[in-house]
Amino acid sequence: MIRIKRLSTADADFTARLNSLLAFEAAQDESVERTVAAILSDVKARGDAAVIEYTRRFDGLSVDSMAELEVSQNELQAALAGLLSDQRQALEAAAGRVRNYHQRQTLQSWHYEDDGEDACGTMLGQKVTAIDRVGLYVPGGKASYPSSVLMNAIPARVAGVGELIMVVPTPAGEHNPLVLAAAALVGVDRVFTIGGAQAVAALAYGTQSVPQVDKIVGPGNAYVAAAKRRVFGVVGIDMVAGPSEILVICDGHTDPDWVAMDLFSQAEHDELAQSILICPDSAYIERVAAAMEKLLPTMPRRQVIRAALEDRGALIEVRDLDEACCIANRIAPEHLELSLLDAEDWVAKIQHAGAIFIGRYTSESLGDYCAGPNHVLPTSGSARFSSPLGVYDFQKRTSLIRVSQAGSRVLGRIAATLAYGEGLPAHARSAEYRVDS
Amino acid sequence: MIRIKRLSTADADFTARLNSLLAFEAAQDESVERTVAAILSDVKARGDAAVIEYTRRFDGLSVDSMAELEVSQNELQAALAGLLSDQRQALEAAAGRVRNYHQRQTLQSWHYEDDGEDACGTMLGQKVTAIDRVGLYVPGGKASYPSSVLMNAIPARVAGVGELIMVVPTPAGEHNPLVLAAAALVGVDRVFTIGGAQAVAALAYGTQSVPQVDKIVGPGNAYVAAAKRRVFGVVGIDMVAGPSEILVICDGHTDPDWVAMDLFSQAEHDELAQSILICPDSAYIERVAAAMEKLLPTMPRRQVIRAALEDRGALIEVRDLDEACCIANRIAPEHLELSLLDAEDWVAKIQHAGAIFIGRYTSESLGDYCAGPNHVLPTSGSARFSSPLGVYDFQKRTSLIRVSQAGSRVLGRIAATLAYGEGLPAHARSAEYRVDS
Repeated sequence: MIRIKRLSTADADFTARLNSLLAFEAAQDESVERTVAAILSDVKARGDAAVIEYTRRFDGLSVDSMAELEVSQNELQAALAGLLSDQRQALEAAAGRVRNYHQRQTLQSWHYEDDGEDACGTMLGQKVTAIDRVGLYVPGGKASYPSSVLMNAIPARVAGVGELIMVVPTPAGEHNPLVLAAAALVGVDRVFTIGGAQAVAALAYGTQSVPQVDKIVGPGNAYVAAAKRRVFGVVGIDMVAGPSEILVICDGHTDPDWVAMDLFSQAEHDELAQSILICPDSAYIERVAAAMEKLLPTMPRRQVIRAALEDRGALIEVRDLDEACCIANRIAPEHLELSLLDAEDWVAKIQHAGAIFIGRYTSESLGDYCAGPNHVLPTSGSARFSSPLGVYDFQKRTSLIRVSQAGSRVLGRIAATLAYGEGLPAHARSAEYRVDS
Repeated sequence: MIRIKRLSTADADFTARLNSLLAFEAAQDESVERTVAAILSDVKARGDAAVIEYTRRFDGLSVDSMAELEVSQNELQAALAGLLSDQRQALEAAAGRVRNYHQRQTLQSWHYEDDGEDACGTMLGQKVTAIDRVGLYVPGGKASYPSSVLMNAIPARVAGVGELIMVVPTPAGEHNPLVLAAAALVGVDRVFTIGGAQAVAALAYGTQSVPQVDKIVGPGNAYVAAAKRRVFGVVGIDMVAGPSEILVICDGHTDPDWVAMDLFSQAEHDELAQSILICPDSAYIERVAAAMEKLLPTMPRRQVIRAALEDRGALIEVRDLDEACCIANRIAPEHLELSLLDAEDWVAKIQHAGAIFIGRYTSESLGDYCAGPNHVLPTSGSARFSSPLGVYDFQKRTSLIRVSQAGSRVLGRIAATLAYGEGLPAHARSAEYRVDS
């Protein structure tokens, strides 16, 4: 029997139990921090030699040069050509749909002539440009996902990023042909088979062989996350992602097998993943629980699924769907399924979620692969203040200000008054020179 | 004599000297880190009691309750009413212009029906919402700036943030009436006179009196910066800002006094600020140097200005203005003045800068106070990958996906193929249920 927590908003201790269910802070392991700090400064100082040494040690590769750690464009194209035809079609269809969605996100530059009578001839605006060079971290081994390559690389390409450098560790030397094929499909410029903190350091500081990038994106283990936090400022980084989560709000009229499998689909990621069902119908909750019991033995990853469900999962009974939406906003889930009749009507009640999957036919897994929106989403409640990965993350803005001689007389007086008030006389005089000119 | 560095691109060691001029990494002081970690966990555990204790200790206030550390709306309004009329007019004019500019930044929600024949009835989109509650850190003492209140609070208000909580330390108990007036003008909801890591902790975790926020913005000292880095993830934060910088590109035809004063206006911020002039005319560079000698004795903050110019400033001679733009892109300055004839024509050559001040009449100080764009800008070369503070920082996006029954048959097959390829069978089966329905 799966020992998944049962909560009800009717219980006196509901809020406390919900808070404890959601409490998750990534442990900051001191030994990881020390190891990472040492690797970063070593790669910064010694470049390629240090990267090669760590790759030999941690990935068990017997290589002597960085050239052996770069995958050629020929190899990438060969991986793409070698795909089974249904895989290639699926990958291309997914890439096309993801590109189509993200193209709607590009910010455009704008400017305007100031229309206030006090500032004649003043032009204000913002110029939008792409980041020059981006590093894409792709995990190696069991969590090496071609879909992650698409979801990280396509928005960068749509933004107009000049050069995409991918790193992917290959412990024991085994290349993942799907990952390489995805890299070929999205036009990654260079691929190095390095990983861990040493790969993050190589991208952040540059080495003799690895070009220095301006921003590093992509998921990784605790060492990669710690390294990204530490190089933040030298380069940009994306969010440091926590475990995956799904919240399903169901009215009790979806096939219980579907909901059970949707909950499994997050739980199979890893033991820390969180799957929660909210429903006003207690009998239906039991039907989903029964479906989980029935389906679990059929799942190849059933041990991971069970651990995740028992440790972090929950079935929550609520009074009604309004209350369900309140709790969803409290959770601010990464993925929210509205498995409801007239599901679209409920979207307006959701303030905080990474992505909303609307209606019974919209399984979360469609969004993971091919619906179009990004699958890199805010976790651990950070949808309260952050957003899905997008083209925005690969563009940047520069403010534009042009003040005419006439305008500088008006604005200069305002600026000087405020600057003197702040005790910054050089600011004031710099403005006053223009006033008096 | 001001010992400011002189560089020329004609020198063999130019690149090395430029790199060493720009090298700046904020020291991560271990004792600061330990102190901050202790304060954060203490405030998290004990709430108000801990905040009061640290405020007594660090700010020298003899208070016994949080109520004594909150500024009432009456006090805020009194501060606004008590302003000199020219200051009030200047503050209102600045606020109006900043609001007008930022209103053009708001992102709108959008959605579209998928037009691909493979996905009939699929709706994709993104819903844009404001962050619920934002904390605004305002430094106390000498660097307590009303303009910072405007620049941080107005984009939040324009984004539609529900509640703005401001913290500002008052060492020795002295309130800054300009800061309080600015808070009143932009409609800050609550103000607490607390600061340091204890204020960041109170905002991030909430206490009995201080409401927990979703994001913390605003500048602060090393303790505040370290605390913000540590609570990142629990709440959102803005960038951790480095010292201020100005780069002036001049064609040699601006009054040298103007350029000298523009360089001073950054240098007066603090000893680590960076002021650089790039010019193709060596005789003009000497005229600016002479103007600096002449003007420095007239500056109240001349010791700070001198230290900044001698330690981090430079006068750089280049072959031509194209080369000047190349170097500007290498530097990616926070503030870039194009003090040039037909300055607008050169904007296209600039890829990386926080803000560009176009033409001789556009002194950087106009942008600090009242031109309209934000004065919170990326420092230390981070304009390569990040952007001015804006409405964007107070909005967030939620992806919307609605797949019809017909669409789920098409998309489900694609998703299932890719999910099996990644070894995630629950993802595949969740999609297949819909295909087979």
